[in-house]
Order: sequence, then structure tokens, then C-alpha cells
Amino acid sequence: MADSADIIEDEDVDDEGLPKRLVAAVLDAVASTNVAALNALLNPLHPADVADLLEQIDQRDRATLLFLWRDGIDGEILSELGDDLRSEVIDLLGPAELADAVRDLESDDVVDLVEDLGVDQQEQVLDALEAGNRVAVEKALAYPDESAGRLMQMEVVRAPSHWTVGQTIDFLRASDDLPEQFYHVILVDPRMKPVGYVTLGRLLGTPRLIHLTELLEDSFRTFRVDQDEEEVAYAFNQYHLISAPVVDEDDRLVGVITIDDAMIVLDDEHDEDILRLAGVDAESSLTDKVIATTKRRFPWLAVNLVTAIFASLIISLFEDTIATLVALAVLMPIVASMGGNAGTQSLTVAVRSIATKDLTGANVWRVIRREVLVGLVNGAIFAVVMGIVGWVWFGSPMLGLVIAIAMVINMVVAGLAGTGIPVLLEKMGVDPALASGAFVTTVTDVVGFFAFLGLAAVMLL
Amino acid sequence: MADSADIIEDEDVDDEGLPKRLVAAVLDAVASTNVAALNALLNPLHPADVADLLEQIDQRDRATLLFLWRDGIDGEILSELGDDLRSEVIDLLGPAELADAVRDLESDDVVDLVEDLGVDQQEQVLDALEAGNRVAVEKALAYPDESAGRLMQMEVVRAPSHWTVGQTIDFLRASDDLPEQFYHVILVDPRMKPVGYVTLGRLLGTPRLIHLTELLEDSFRTFRVDQDEEEVAYAFNQYHLISAPVVDEDDRLVGVITIDDAMIVLDDEHDEDILRLAGVDAESSLTDKVIATTKRRFPWLAVNLVTAIFASLIISLFEDTIATLVALAVLMPIVASMGGNAGTQSLTVAVRSIATKDLTGANVWRVIRREVLVGLVNGAIFAVVMGIVGWVWFGSPMLGLVIAIAMVINMVVAGLAGTGIPVLLEKMGVDPALASGAFVTTVTDVVGFFAFLGLAAVMLL
Repeated sequence: MADSADIIEDEDVDDEGLPKRLVAAVLDAVASTNVAALNALLNPLHPADVADLLEQIDQRDRATLLFLWRDGIDGEILSELGDDLRSEVIDLLGPAELADAVRDLESDDVVDLVEDLGVDQQEQVLDALEAGNRVAVEKALAYPDESAGRLMQMEVVRAPSHWTVGQTIDFLRASDDLPEQFYHVILVDPRMKPVGYVTLGRLLGTPRLIHLTELLEDSFRTFRVDQDEEEVAYAFNQYHLISAPVVDEDDRLVGVITIDDAMIVLDDEHDEDILRLAGVDAESSLTDKVIATTKRRFPWLAVNLVTAIFASLIISLFEDTIATLVALAVLMPIVASMGGNAGTQSLTVAVRSIATKDLTGANVWRVIRREVLVGLVNGAIFAVVMGIVGWVWFGSPMLGLVIAIAMVINMVVAGLAGTGIPVLLEKMGVDPALASGAFVTTVTDVVGFFAFLGLAAVMLL
Repeated sequence: MADSADIIEDEDVDDEGLPKRLVAAVLDAVASTNVAALNALLNPLHPADVADLLEQIDQRDRATLLFLWRDGIDGEILSELGDDLRSEVIDLLGPAELADAVRDLESDDVVDLVEDLGVDQQEQVLDALEAGNRVAVEKALAYPDESAGRLMQMEVVRAPSHWTVGQTIDFLRASDDLPEQFYHVILVDPRMKPVGYVTLGRLLGTPRLIHLTELLEDSFRTFRVDQDEEEVAYAFNQYHLISAPVVDEDDRLVGVITIDDAMIVLDDEHDEDILRLAGVDAESSLTDKVIATTKRRFPWLAVNLVTAIFASLIISLFEDTIATLVALAVLMPIVASMGGNAGTQSLTVAVRSIATKDLTGANVWRVIRREVLVGLVNGAIFAVVMGIVGWVWFGSPMLGLVIAIAMVINMVVAGLAGTGIPVLLEKMGVDPALASGAFVTTVTDVVGFFAFLGLAAVMLL
């Protein structure tokens, strides 16, 4: 019987991710209710790949698979599932299987698993935990959503700051409850305030009599439990941190965040930005149902309908002009479209730069000036092209001149609005990724139609 | 004199990134050519923050600052700068300062620093290195661009797979050239093939007589030197790797990649996707000059001009219809705009799902079906709204009906094209983030104008 290792071996190694043939083999095993085949295929897989597989098959196959392979689902697989699917799978598991699945997880993984579940399911999972673990999880859940407290693990390896390398190694060798994963020893003062950290590699490479304080890493930063996880991820990325202590309001060490947690947050934030820029609710996933997806797409489309009607009102001001010269109706979408695209370019650069804190009060005017100049230069080039196209197409040099001027105006405005609107929104505390698009394209549509049709009314008729 | 620590302390701690007041203080010190003040402000900063600061001030101030604070620029600051600015700063430094700056960097950091420089500057930096380091850097530069070989560090801590914990600890304690940063010991077989790895934490927490093979981490993966760095970053993210060995074509261990390197790649890839979706060249940065930016924005705008003209050709087919009923010119952008927005929503979800390998051959038809149904439902809702608006606005129930039908058609097509086009591009080996937008909006513009004006010609005249 082919197991998943054979199938993965066959595929091009360059291509990470789930091989299509593996998914097909699993669906075959599900269809023929072949438990042995399922075990051979699924047991060797990484939990993240099992989760991806569950997301890629349809709901009926998923239910059958979970029925046949109930014992295979563990806490790690549950952690890897998207929120909606996790809820679905927990409902399909019996209480006994659920307890088995979550019992071996560390407290921060359980937090991650349950924080977005409904109250009933959260209770179900918490009931399955041992008392000590449950207390730790409940303590973490008491911290605000998306805070450093939620992200951190509470198991910390620390040492008094006056210790030597030898004392520290002896202490570690004698401990019998070191965390599963740790890479640093955090130095604390007598008040439990973290003062620095030493990597295990440095510890192993240094003579016993040297003091820990001589081995401190430069890039030491602490976070407060209530600090936003987005700020934590930014700092890990900016300062190349590997792990960082978390302190409470009295500056006492209460946990540690490691780079792998920060990487997940960074990845989520990026996804959120990219989806919000396109007017998609960041919570959405590929496994959402039609109704859920429709609801999530609706608000942005509704906003767009309002702004589109607004742009149409501008056009309707010039109905008589268009009636006299229908060529205007043919050409006007070009002016609006070029402005919209130039504006989207500017706004995307601005939104990204705001997110990475590269666009600040110190350089905003310089960036706006640059974007306006870029709009002017590109606008001038496309104005010449479009002026000639308009002239040749409709045999009217004046029509070519009108579209050329409108094009330059709209592309300059696009540069201005594409940078200025996200910066203003950020200053007002609104997420620029979410709202900029609607504003910028409204501006470029309105200006585009108004400039083109207005100039036409004045210059051509 | 205020130094940067005081200023940073004053700011809201929640707000990571460079405080505006710090930038202002640095500019003051530059303006008054006050070297002591510059030292007090800049020396305590993390190299990443110095680099950000250099990016946020203008070119003249930057030149003065570098002249005054020449000795402060080190290799880490150079590494943190964007490509264009790095070149500019290297040109401003004398050969002696450049040599001082790069001499202390590890080989993988030098690779990172020079790989995107011009040949002259690359040579300048290489000349500043010691012979041994230079050989290592040249070896790494021989690997393909954006490969695992470029990303890895060559200093690896390894142990024969038959060793015990005690043997390994003794070996590490006796070594005097352990790398600056390492978190794992890689186990190799006699042919130097990596067979697994053990974390330093596990090593420190385990009795001396236990064999390393009993302590192996589950999530072990190796990469080939020529493998794409994007695949490496995907695997780190998917399988929560902390570090992973890199092997040559004979499966021999040649280096190691750590999660911090992978995080940087992941961050870059995300940026690339988000910018490409908006038609911006991913290489661009906020410090680019007007001409460079104009050139980088131009190609997408040129593509857009062609597609916009194509859409206008469709409109021109219906000039007579529009001449008879100018209301059509007023309403037609609404149909195109709603389709464009719905299409952008679908395509962004599809592009993201392709990047994370969640949208595959196994579920593509299910996702397309969902997107089409979402288009149908939202299309139907907006059709009713827009039908009524059209009827009331222009007093023609038939005009309302025409726009309603066109709206449903265009939003269904948007769902189909928004998912289908990125999937097809991916299959053809074209980056869907780069090209999907132009194709999808062309489809929704053309279908939107054609459906609306065509139905109007048939039903209204």
C-alpha cells in the first residue's frame, strides 16, 4: 500500500505543499472507507499538512474522514485549522477524543486553540485540561485579545543576573522541568525585572567562571503583557529578535515570546493588509460558505456602489455635452481608469510604508511631492499618447487636447490623493488599508469625469 | 544634552518605530554640524533604526550626516539599508571607513550586503574583507540568486549521530570557534548527511548518557542549496521550523538556515505580492527618485491604457445607442465598477490562497463555484438596488431592468474570472500577483459595458 512518504518522494522536491496525488489518494480511501489506507496516508504527515488537507476537501468527505480517522486528530492539527473549520471539527469529535487531543498541548498552544472559539466549545476544551494547565490558560485568556500576554508562553528559564556560566549550566542540568523549547536564559534582578538575556550557544561556548552579564546580547527588548501583538511582531522583525521577555505593569517577568510566534502574527497582519486593500474582510478563509462569504464581501461593494453613483452624478451634469458629442462617453472611462490605477499604485506604496513605519511625519511631504511629480511625468507621457489616439480616432485635435489635459490633471490628483488619504486616515486612527481604496478611487473617478467632461464643455462646444 | 534614550523613553511605549522628535533632533544636529549631539543621538540606536532614519531624511541632510558621523556607520547599518540607499552611502564612505564597517560582519551578512550591489561596489567591499571571509562570501555568491545557498550561514555546529549528550556537551565546551548564533546541533551520518537535530535546551536538560538520537525534534527538514528561498520561507512558516540544514547535490551538509533569515524572506515576499497586486514593481522603495519611480510605475499604467482603450472600443460599438439615450453613458460606469471591485475581491483571495498553497487542483472547482455563487447573490442584491435607482432616477422601469440584469451578469463573470484567471496564470508559470489584475478588470470592463449597452440596444430601442 502506498503511504504518503512514497507519494511525497515522487513529487518534485522543489514544490513544497500538499501534492495533488496525496489528496486524491486520501479521497479514494475515504470513499472506500479504508481505515488502514487512511492511517498509512495521514499518520506520517505533519499536522499543518493534515490541516491543509482537511481544508481542501469538501464538507461531506471531511465528516467521513473524521469519523474513520477520529483517533488521528490531535491538538496540533486542531491548532493549525482556520477558526470556522476548527469549530466544525471540534463538533464532530466526541468529548473523549477532544480531551485526548488537547491534553498534551502546552498552555500557550491551548490559548491559541480556544481564544476564537465560541463560549460552549471553549468550556468543552477547558474541561478536558488538567487543573494546573487550565489555570494557566484561563490566566492567559484574561489578557486582552491580540496582546503580548496572549502570545507569550509562561514557562520561562531565568537566572539571577549575578550568576556565572558554571552556576547557570549546573542549574539547568539539575532542573527537571525545562520547557519544551527555549533558546535563551533570561537574567533577572532581585525584583524579577528582566535585565538581559544570554543565548544557550554562548553559554555552552564560554568558560565556567565568566559572569552572565558579560555575555548579554545587544538586541534586548521587553514587552508589556498588554502591548499589541502587532507592535511585538514589528519589533521582532525590525530588531531581529529571537525571543523577548514579557513583563507585567510592575516590570516583573511573566513570560517570553519567541520568534516563531512573532512570525505567525506578522504573516497574519500581512494577510489582513493585502485582503483589506482589496475590500475583503480579513477574517475570511477559503473554506467559508457562500452565505458567509457573500456577507463579508457585501459592505465594500455597497460602499463602492455609493461612490460609483456619486461619480455618475458628475457625469449626469454633462448629459447635454455628451448628447452633442458621444465620443466623450467613449473616452471618459479611460481618464477615470488611468487615474484609478495610478492612485492605487500610490496608495499601496503608502499603506505598506505606513505599516512598516517608513512613512512618517518626517518624510511625508517629500513622499507626496515625489508622488505628485511621478503623476505629472507619467501623466504627461500618457497624455501625449492618448491625445494622439483621441485625435486620430475621432479626427478632432481639440478632443485629443481635452483628454490629454484631463489625463495630466487626474494623474497628479491620483498621486496626491493616493499618498495623502492613507496618511490622513492613519492620523485619524482609521486603518488605511481598509478605507483608502474607496476614497482614492472616488476622488480619481470624480476628478477624471469632471475634468474631462468639464473641459470638453468649455473647449469643444 | 538629550540623547536618544531620553527621547525614546518620553514617547508612548506602545508606539514602536522612530519617534518624530528624534528625527527632528538629528536634523537639528546636522544643521548645526554638532558632532557631539549626533553621537549622543545616534550611537545608542539600533542599526535598523539608524537605517530607517537615513531613509527618512533627504539626500542633502544624509550627505552631511554621513560626513559628520562617518565613523558611526557600521556593516549592520549598511545591511539594513534598502539597495539604492546602500549604494549611495557606500559611495559617500571612503575606502578606509568601508573596510572598517564590513570587517566584523559574518560571511552570510556580507553576502546579504553585497549581492544586489553593482560590480564595482561589490569588488570594493570584497577587497575590504580578510582572505578567509572573502572566500566564503565568493562561494555563497556562486549560488543562484534567491536560493537557499545565498540565505544560509556556512558556520554549522554538527555532531556524529552516534554521540551521547555528554560527548556533545564536552565537545561544545571545548570548541573555541562556535558561531555567534546557534540554537541546534545538527546530527550527521558518516557521509555528512544530516539526519536530524537536537535543540540546545534539550541537550542541557538531559542526562549525559542518553544518545542524541533519542532527543531528535520531529519537525526536521533539509533544503538543497539551489532551492528557491521562497520555498524555504514557506516551509519555515508551515512547519514552524527554527532552523534547518542545507545540503549540496550529494546530500552533504553545507550550511544552516535559521528562522530569522526565513522571516525576512517571508516579509519580502509578502511585500512583493501586495505591491504587485497594485501594479507596482516590488523592487521600489520610498527613497527612490522621481525618475526611477516613474519608470517603475509606467509598465502597469501602459498595460492599463491598452485595456482601457479596448473597453472604450466596446463602448464605441454602441455610440448610436448612447446618442439616443444619454442616461446609458451616465449609468454604464457603475456596472463596470461593481464588476471590477467584485473581481478584485475574488482575485486577491485567489492570489493569497495560491501563495499559501491553500488553493490547489483539489479544491479549485469548489472555490470557483463558491465565487460564482457569491457573485450571483451579491449581484442579485445590488441589481435590485440599482434597478430601483435607475428606474427612479431616469423614470424608466425598463432601464432599471437592463442595469439590474447587466449587474448580475458582470458580478458572476467577476467571480469566475477573479478565481479562474489567477489559477490559469499560475498553471502557465506566470506570477498571478503580477498579471491577474489587468486581465480581470479588462474582463469586467468589457463584459460590463457590453452587457449593459447590448441589453439596452435590444430592450430599450
